[in-house]
Amino acid sequence: MNRIPFAEVQQTLAGVLIRRGMSAQRAQTCARLFAETTRDGVYTHGINRFPRFVATIQNGSVDVKAEARLVAGFGALERWDGRRGPGNLNALAAMERAIGLSREHGVGCIALGNTNHWMRAGTYGWQAAEAGMIGICWTNTMPNLPPWGGLDPVIGNNPLVFAVPRRGGLVVLDMAMSQFSYGSLESYRKKGEMLPVDGGFDEAGNLTRDPAAIEKSWRPLPVGYWKGSGLSVVLDMIAAMMSLGRATHEIPADPLLEAGISQMFLAMNPQAFGPSPRAEEIAGEVVASLHGCKPTKEGGRVRYPGEQTLRMRAENEKLGLPVEPAVWEQISTWS
Amino acid sequence: MNRIPFAEVQQTLAGVLIRRGMSAQRAQTCARLFAETTRDGVYTHGINRFPRFVATIQNGSVDVKAEARLVAGFGALERWDGRRGPGNLNALAAMERAIGLSREHGVGCIALGNTNHWMRAGTYGWQAAEAGMIGICWTNTMPNLPPWGGLDPVIGNNPLVFAVPRRGGLVVLDMAMSQFSYGSLESYRKKGEMLPVDGGFDEAGNLTRDPAAIEKSWRPLPVGYWKGSGLSVVLDMIAAMMSLGRATHEIPADPLLEAGISQMFLAMNPQAFGPSPRAEEIAGEVVASLHGCKPTKEGGRVRYPGEQTLRMRAENEKLGLPVEPAVWEQISTWS
Repeated sequence: MNRIPFAEVQQTLAGVLIRRGMSAQRAQTCARLFAETTRDGVYTHGINRFPRFVATIQNGSVDVKAEARLVAGFGALERWDGRRGPGNLNALAAMERAIGLSREHGVGCIALGNTNHWMRAGTYGWQAAEAGMIGICWTNTMPNLPPWGGLDPVIGNNPLVFAVPRRGGLVVLDMAMSQFSYGSLESYRKKGEMLPVDGGFDEAGNLTRDPAAIEKSWRPLPVGYWKGSGLSVVLDMIAAMMSLGRATHEIPADPLLEAGISQMFLAMNPQAFGPSPRAEEIAGEVVASLHGCKPTKEGGRVRYPGEQTLRMRAENEKLGLPVEPAVWEQISTWS
Repeated sequence: MNRIPFAEVQQTLAGVLIRRGMSAQRAQTCARLFAETTRDGVYTHGINRFPRFVATIQNGSVDVKAEARLVAGFGALERWDGRRGPGNLNALAAMERAIGLSREHGVGCIALGNTNHWMRAGTYGWQAAEAGMIGICWTNTMPNLPPWGGLDPVIGNNPLVFAVPRRGGLVVLDMAMSQFSYGSLESYRKKGEMLPVDGGFDEAGNLTRDPAAIEKSWRPLPVGYWKGSGLSVVLDMIAAMMSLGRATHEIPADPLLEAGISQMFLAMNPQAFGPSPRAEEIAGEVVASLHGCKPTKEGGRVRYPGEQTLRMRAENEKLGLPVEPAVWEQISTWS
C-alpha cells in the first residue's frame, strides 16, 4: 500500500477530470470528495473507486458538464433534476440547498432525480452535520439484492444516512440495506475468512457465513432479513415518487450503466427556535451512555456511529492516504 | 379466542377511559386506535395492551386530561410538549399537524417531547398515507436493547415508520430496532418453536434461535447487528434533541413507568407541485416489480410492507376482532 499526501491525490484526480472536460472548480470539488472518502477510511468508495467513475464518464453514463438544477419548488420542498451529472457534485449541491432551506423553514427537503452514484453516502451526512444541521439522506441503486421471500435481485441496497451535529465529534450513520456489500464479501474471501455473522444464502438456500457461497448465489441478506428488505422498498418508492425519477427496477443492473437514479436529502435545524445549548448537550449525553455500557469483550468499548471515522481520518491525515499501487499507477497514466 | 364486533370493542374501551376521567370525544378516538390496531392484526399493541395502558393511567404515568401543545414553531418545523398525555392521542395530533404543515410548506416536521408510548407505531404512518402524504415517524423507548459490542440494555428498540400513499393499498413499514420483541420471543417460546433466524445471544454469548435463552440473557439482537444498533442511537439523539425531551438513557426501564419519551413526525407532500399522476404510478410499479419476483418457495409471493395488514383487516372486519377471553373479561369488569 502506498501513502500519498491528500493534496497530491486531490490535484492528480482533479487533473484527470479537467482533461475529461470538467470545469476546474468542479473538478477540484469532485476530487476532494474522493480524497476525503479515502481519508475517512471508506476505501471502497474513494480513490479505489475513481477508475470506475472515469469509465462512466468515458461511456457517457456521467456527463461531466451537467449541473443539477431546480425543477419545482414549494416552500421547504424542492424537486431537482440531476441531468446525469457527476453524482457526488449533484448530491453535494442538493444537501447544500436542503441546509439552506432548513435555515429558512426549520426543515428542508430536496428530491433529486436523474442523478448518478454519489459514491460515499456518508459524505452528505457529514456535510449537514458540519453545517450544524441534522441530515437525513438516501439513494436508490440498481437492483442488487433479492427482497425477503424472493430469489431475483429486484431491490437495491439503497444506502441511508442519519447525521447529528455534536461538539467533540459528529455522529454519522451510513448504512446500506445489505448486511455486507459485494466489495466486502470479496474482501473476506480474499483474506480466506468467514463473515462474522450470516451474510446471505448459499445456492441450496441455507443461511451462510461463507462469502464465496454468497457471491455464487447472488443472494446477500438484507439487514434484519424482512425488515431491511421492506426498508429498501419504501426508500426506493419515496425517492422515485418525490423526484419523479427512476425506481430501482428501472435502473440498469450494471455498475457501468447504473445511471439516472433517485435521491432524497433532508436537513433539520436543531437551533431553529434560537440557540439551544441543551440540544448540544443531549447528543453528548447519549454518547456518554454508550461509552458507559459494559463491553462484550474485556477492554472493548461501545462506539457511536462515526466514532471510528475520526480515528481513521487522523491517521490518514498524518501518514498520507493509503492507495493501492495498481490503482494509483492507472490513475497516473491518465494525468 | 373470542370475536367481538369493532363497534362494541370501541364502546367498551371508551367507557373505561371515560370512567377514568378522559373526555368523551378523546376517549372515543383513543379507543378507536386500540380497536384498529387489533383489527389490523397487531395484537400485541391493540386490545391486549389496553390493561397495561389503564395501569399507566392509574399509576400516574399517563395523564388522561393532558393534551399536547405547541411550544415553538419556525416555518415547517414545530416543537410540541406532550405533557405526559395519552401517547396515541398525542402522536395522532402531532402527525395531523405535520400533515397540515406539509400542505403549507411541502414538508412538515413535529418534534414531540414529554409524551408517552404511542402503542402501534404504524398507526401514524397509515394516518399520513391516508391523507395522501409520505409519512416518516419514530419514537424512542425505555432502554431495552444492548448496543452492538455491549452487554447492558442502554439503547431502545425505537420503532421507525415509513409510509407511502398508493391507490390499491398504502405501503407502510413499521420496524422496531430489535429483530424480535420480547412479546414475540414469548410467543415463540409458548408455542415451543425456535426463531426462524438468530434473534439474540444466549448467556454464553453465542448467537441463538432459542427464544428462552434470549429472554434469560436479556440480549436480543439489533436489526442487522451493528447497523440497527447505530440506527437506534441516531433516532434517539434526533428525537431528544429536536424535542428537547428525554433520550432513552433517561427513561425508566419499566413498562409501567416508561413515560416522558420523545418522538418525531415528518410528512412530505408528493403532490406539492400540482397533481402528479406519475407519482401515483411509481409506487404501483415498484409493487408490481416485487410481485413479479421469483419466490423462494413454490406458490409464495414477495409482499410489500403493509400488504398483509390489508388481508388481516378484511378478515377481522368480517369476523369481529379476536380478543383473548381473559383480557376481555378483565376489561369488562372495568366498564
